[in-house]
Amino acid sequence: MANPSILILAGDGIGPEVMAEVKKIIGWFGTRRGITFDVTEDLVGGCAYDKHGTPLHDDTMAKAQEVDAVLLGAVGGPQYDNLDFSVKPERGLLRLRKEMDLYSNLRPAQCFDALADFSSLKKEVVAGLDIVIVRELTSGVYFGEPRGIFTEGNERVGINTQRYTESEIARVARSAFELARRRNNKVCSMEKANVMESGILWRQVVQEIHDKEYPDVQLSHMYADAGAMQLCRWPKQFDVIVTDNLFGDLLSDAAAMLTGSLGMLPSASLGAPMANGRPKALYEPVHGSAPDIAGQGKANPIACILSFAMALRYSFDLGDEAARVEAAVETVLANGLRTADLMGPDGGTPVSTSQMGDAVVAAL
Amino acid sequence: MANPSILILAGDGIGPEVMAEVKKIIGWFGTRRGITFDVTEDLVGGCAYDKHGTPLHDDTMAKAQEVDAVLLGAVGGPQYDNLDFSVKPERGLLRLRKEMDLYSNLRPAQCFDALADFSSLKKEVVAGLDIVIVRELTSGVYFGEPRGIFTEGNERVGINTQRYTESEIARVARSAFELARRRNNKVCSMEKANVMESGILWRQVVQEIHDKEYPDVQLSHMYADAGAMQLCRWPKQFDVIVTDNLFGDLLSDAAAMLTGSLGMLPSASLGAPMANGRPKALYEPVHGSAPDIAGQGKANPIACILSFAMALRYSFDLGDEAARVEAAVETVLANGLRTADLMGPDGGTPVSTSQMGDAVVAAL
Ligand SMILES: CC(C)[C@H](C(=O)O)[C@@H](O)C(=O)O
Ligand SMILES: CC(C)[C@H](C(=O)O)[C@@H](O)C(=O)O
Repeated sequence: MANPSILILAGDGIGPEVMAEVKKIIGWFGTRRGITFDVTEDLVGGCAYDKHGTPLHDDTMAKAQEVDAVLLGAVGGPQYDNLDFSVKPERGLLRLRKEMDLYSNLRPAQCFDALADFSSLKKEVVAGLDIVIVRELTSGVYFGEPRGIFTEGNERVGINTQRYTESEIARVARSAFELARRRNNKVCSMEKANVMESGILWRQVVQEIHDKEYPDVQLSHMYADAGAMQLCRWPKQFDVIVTDNLFGDLLSDAAAMLTGSLGMLPSASLGAPMANGRPKALYEPVHGSAPDIAGQGKANPIACILSFAMALRYSFDLGDEAARVEAAVETVLANGLRTADLMGPDGGTPVSTSQMGDAVVAAL
Repeated sequence: MANPSILILAGDGIGPEVMAEVKKIIGWFGTRRGITFDVTEDLVGGCAYDKHGTPLHDDTMAKAQEVDAVLLGAVGGPQYDNLDFSVKPERGLLRLRKEMDLYSNLRPAQCFDALADFSSLKKEVVAGLDIVIVRELTSGVYFGEPRGIFTEGNERVGINTQRYTESEIARVARSAFELARRRNNKVCSMEKANVMESGILWRQVVQEIHDKEYPDVQLSHMYADAGAMQLCRWPKQFDVIVTDNLFGDLLSDAAAMLTGSLGMLPSASLGAPMANGRPKALYEPVHGSAPDIAGQGKANPIACILSFAMALRYSFDLGDEAARVEAAVETVLANGLRTADLMGPDGGTPVSTSQMGDAVVAAL
């Protein structure tokens, strides 16, 4: 059987630095566990624009469609801020999500014991927090047509379209219910059904899928503004949250920040199963490209390493190996190793990006 | 000269209870300060639907257009959840906002000293916090057309339209810059210009208005997801935040919750000046109708009382009288009086809704 294949798109800013540490982990699996991945690398985002004039070359897109999993670092940087909308670094990422049809974005918001003091929230509010936001990732206002800036009379008008079909809602709802069954069996769905018809349809379809296919899962509905409030007040009331692309963008970033572990949080974007039974998949850290600290060895590689752990679990059915990586990260943190973003109230031993990666490999 | 006129729409749930306390304050101004308001009362929301089959009768709408200020309690309740979208309680509120053209919604997120321990955030993160979110209130995805649930092929599709014209953005931007000049001279504008064209136009227009008319104000731009993060991390970095209707809905609720003072926060929704120079205006507490505690004397009337104080300041040019009401509230809190929502770590004297109102009147 062919080795499992991975396409690495390290991207911009701190992307290449944190990805270098993931490659060490991948290397370790080859030499120490006999699990060899066929790794190819390519460009996405600003660096792809610099080389090809587009944030994602068609060849790269084609490769992404063929591999078992894509690992992405981060895209974007101030030097690309004034590019035309159609070639901004973000368009590369959005094209991958859309064309690979990665409709289910899993964003765990987890508070690491060793870091509970880092949150701006009180320790008792976040300690032990472990929730997952399932964000719809291929539709909604991110992709709806018509869109653009038009002239009407003597002024400009900016237009975007929020658009959800029943089947788009149904498939991400199923993915949330499946996940909840493997966790604490609770799903909270968030929208603005009180002001948006797309929210009404969202609520109805989630409820229908629940009643027909997942009656055993506990389902509740919340308006997204109340959801933002409740995430700030008592996030532990949630298990799995399912929401649309735009609400998911804001709510998952807020939730990630609450944990105090922003440099620690991975994500998985999953699509339909391919011929080999594996889902189309892209894994990336929740943090961005952090251009202000790029190239200085300050970045925390753990979010990217944990994204690879998610790949082991969701793409390669290697749950035990994923747990091994996660345990190694816990060990390193418990030993007090801290990249710059983690230097805080509890002191600890300052380490660089690559020292952190080495320590995780050693702990494996 | 005619007395200034107020239309009270107490609405549903705890609305009537908290408004009863405001009426005491209004009475006090008449008898003790010789400032008499002509007060009329009417229905909005579920109670209007119960009586008229619509959440806002045309006669009520006409009255709202004529008075100097509308005071609103809250709308909504579980008994109305299954009503048709077009007659839901919220539609009454949205119609008022739209037809009065109340484009600028000021939502202060302020942490009261006596309550800094109530936040789920660490005390040092929120103590002394005093920011204002200026939310566009009459446009965007709340009102854009086309909208609805349609059938395409054999499935339903939910559609809403995000739509902003240049002049809609310009006027709310001006309102934010004006406010900043009276505060700490800093505005942060939030959108998703990296994925939405309406966000690009938003950013451009805010920048243009700044450069042409308010170059003295410090302006920054932030993506709304990063904004949600930063509000949770270090909200004191902000002074005035200006954002669209939907982002403003989520961000202002999150910000309000952070202060730990949800039952305390007022809001003002302002439109263009009327013939008498006063802006069209509606004042309402940020909290909702809280049907679970309605009618039990548990509700905190302070948000509604402080909304009336905002009316004194913004509609009636009675800034000193507004400050007097605000000081009375501070006194009552400093004396340890606490409605049920405020009973927390620091003990305090439990009081009912009406005892709290009486205490504020006494402190005046
Ligand atoms: C970079 C940007 C296009 C992206 C998004 O808005 O989805 C990011 O914020 C995210 O959450 O992955
Ligand atoms: C009640 C509802 C329609 C309203 C809104 O979404 O604007 C509320 O959440 C608010 O923020 O005033």
